[in-house]
Amino acid sequence: MKRATGLAPGSPPDLRDIEGERLARAALSRLAEPGTARLGAAIAELGAIEVMQRLLAQDGDRAERGVAARLAAIDPAAELERAARVGLRFLIPGDDEWPTQLEDLREAPPLQGRGGPPIGLWVRGPMQLSALAGSVAIVGSRSSTTYGEQIARDLAADLARAGRPVVSGAAFGIDQAAHRGALGGRGQTVAVLACGADRAYPRDHAELISHLAETGAVISETPPAGAPMRVRFLGRNRLIAALSRGTIVVEAARRSGALNTANWADRLHRVVMGVPGPVTAEQSQGVHDLLRAGVGTVVTTGADVLELVGSSGSNLCETPRGRSRPRDRLDLVGLTVLDAVPVSRPAPTEAIATICGLDAGSAGEVLADLQEAGFVERVPGGWRVLPEVVE
Amino acid sequence: MKRATGLAPGSPPDLRDIEGERLARAALSRLAEPGTARLGAAIAELGAIEVMQRLLAQDGDRAERGVAARLAAIDPAAELERAARVGLRFLIPGDDEWPTQLEDLREAPPLQGRGGPPIGLWVRGPMQLSALAGSVAIVGSRSSTTYGEQIARDLAADLARAGRPVVSGAAFGIDQAAHRGALGGRGQTVAVLACGADRAYPRDHAELISHLAETGAVISETPPAGAPMRVRFLGRNRLIAALSRGTIVVEAARRSGALNTANWADRLHRVVMGVPGPVTAEQSQGVHDLLRAGVGTVVTTGADVLELVGSSGSNLCETPRGRSRPRDRLDLVGLTVLDAVPVSRPAPTEAIATICGLDAGSAGEVLADLQEAGFVERVPGGWRVLPEVVE
Repeated sequence: MKRATGLAPGSPPDLRDIEGERLARAALSRLAEPGTARLGAAIAELGAIEVMQRLLAQDGDRAERGVAARLAAIDPAAELERAARVGLRFLIPGDDEWPTQLEDLREAPPLQGRGGPPIGLWVRGPMQLSALAGSVAIVGSRSSTTYGEQIARDLAADLARAGRPVVSGAAFGIDQAAHRGALGGRGQTVAVLACGADRAYPRDHAELISHLAETGAVISETPPAGAPMRVRFLGRNRLIAALSRGTIVVEAARRSGALNTANWADRLHRVVMGVPGPVTAEQSQGVHDLLRAGVGTVVTTGADVLELVGSSGSNLCETPRGRSRPRDRLDLVGLTVLDAVPVSRPAPTEAIATICGLDAGSAGEVLADLQEAGFVERVPGGWRVLPEVVE
Repeated sequence: MKRATGLAPGSPPDLRDIEGERLARAALSRLAEPGTARLGAAIAELGAIEVMQRLLAQDGDRAERGVAARLAAIDPAAELERAARVGLRFLIPGDDEWPTQLEDLREAPPLQGRGGPPIGLWVRGPMQLSALAGSVAIVGSRSSTTYGEQIARDLAADLARAGRPVVSGAAFGIDQAAHRGALGGRGQTVAVLACGADRAYPRDHAELISHLAETGAVISETPPAGAPMRVRFLGRNRLIAALSRGTIVVEAARRSGALNTANWADRLHRVVMGVPGPVTAEQSQGVHDLLRAGVGTVVTTGADVLELVGSSGSNLCETPRGRSRPRDRLDLVGLTVLDAVPVSRPAPTEAIATICGLDAGSAGEVLADLQEAGFVERVPGGWRVLPEVVE
């Protein structure tokens, strides 16, 4: 970024420079498909102005000349103006609110033909994207189960309440449950779309997406009016993974796009998390594969997630313990004697004493205390543990 | 074992020696609680005859004299005779069918006061315990769900069919489902009990336990007629883990004894496996904790288990793939064009061509092929992906 704008470290940003860069990036964003790794890398390396000039100067084969002609036909100032009219801004590296974690995409190798840092982000909504530094992505199957949707909603609400923005893709199923959960938890949530940020896909979620644009942000690499296409979903998934500190896959069948997002998170050294489900549900198979492959960690509650994505030392989950039980109150001698009392046929005091290495008198005293406390009962033939104390 | 019987490596076993050792071990088995780590270690080190002589010669404080007196009062020959009359044999290290994998218990530190190799095993049933070398343990909650029981049954049947004996504890819930699944798969299964191998605990499983004794084996460290006590369950769990090559926890609440078995399996460097379930089910929480802690690996099918416990290289699971889809048949150009076709609003051929880097003529040909093959449709305004092709 510093290299791209020609600024020495520490210099104040040159507004003219960054606006020139913005125009060039807007043009290139319109020219190329999002996630074209080589172009993204070239821009990160040389700056968009230089890349644009080189592309315009191309004069080789027909294809090269075609690119130059198409680029020359783009009017980036008009693009930005049109975008502004529909409430969109175009963010680029160097902007105050630019989510700098996206720079990690420079180091990650492409996946299914998509990769590299975005040329820029088209954004609709009041949220400053710098707030996504501590965000968590929740993704999953579009054909989710009621179980999966409930978990997604609960996790999102927990994260939202803990001040963690929730990133997702506004799709059917898990995505929408995640957005709704975050909204229910009165937290921030953003949608990253495969189509232009001025559009709504899926159509049935037009209202949800509008609401996200009013309260949080709707983000896309695809320029305004761009249609959702498979290649753009793949590019979009990498952004969801890159924007957030960790990705939770709630439900995913074996070919779910959510696994693509998880693979991107892994590739970017983000935390990958999976919510287990019934092994009989197709919607959990992809998650279980991920967990078995050691790519993801099991999470079942918001606290688990916060522990994994928290800055080191913070949000450390308490080691989960079962309900405390009456026997936790016993001292070592009490426990030893209790453990020596049979659960079915009774045993006499002497037999119990022998097992514990106590004399019969001491054992008898401890047994009387245990009876008093409701752990054991005296029956014909000796002592027996009361049923509810077992296991 | 060699040291215990005083045999040089390769010498034929001296029957008199091993029978002397057997008598001494039978006496010590009657004297001490199973899983008394120090005693087990002393016997493994010095042999039972030597340990017995030392204990009999004790003449220190009252406790020591008590132990000597109790030991002197035991008639091991009569013990073995009584056992034989009820169909029990007493196995010790050096016996042909001794499961030598139990020797791993010599190196493992005690857990909750129990540890060390067993003094001997009281066994009822036709199965030779050496056949347990490749066995798998299936354990879990006694208050299991229908889901958990079904999975336990299915896993056990798969393992049984693959020639893997199934080890469990004959308890309510997951244990019984595991035994029944193995029997249903016409495979071998053994129960390790906390009470004497001549008894049935729980009582309601008397018929199941009898059946296991007729077809497989019922095993215990506790001498005949011994009652089930908590301390013996802990000792028993370590044997289930030590006998088998890996332990699967199917369901376990957070304080379930099945987690004790899993911890033993981990301690013994056996494979620890967990079956995920709904995060809303208390019965799966202990399993998820185990998985999250990285102690266990997710398994969902018998094939997963066989891959993990198989000898290296055998039973390698195929990487799971989703159902093959029509798009898998397309070549790279076909895929590229298909990926550029919008899923909602249609795009004209020229726009699609631009995205793919093709001229409009070539793109049009590929689109016609895709239409023919049922991937895309021509609608007013251009081309659109047919819904069922998306994700």
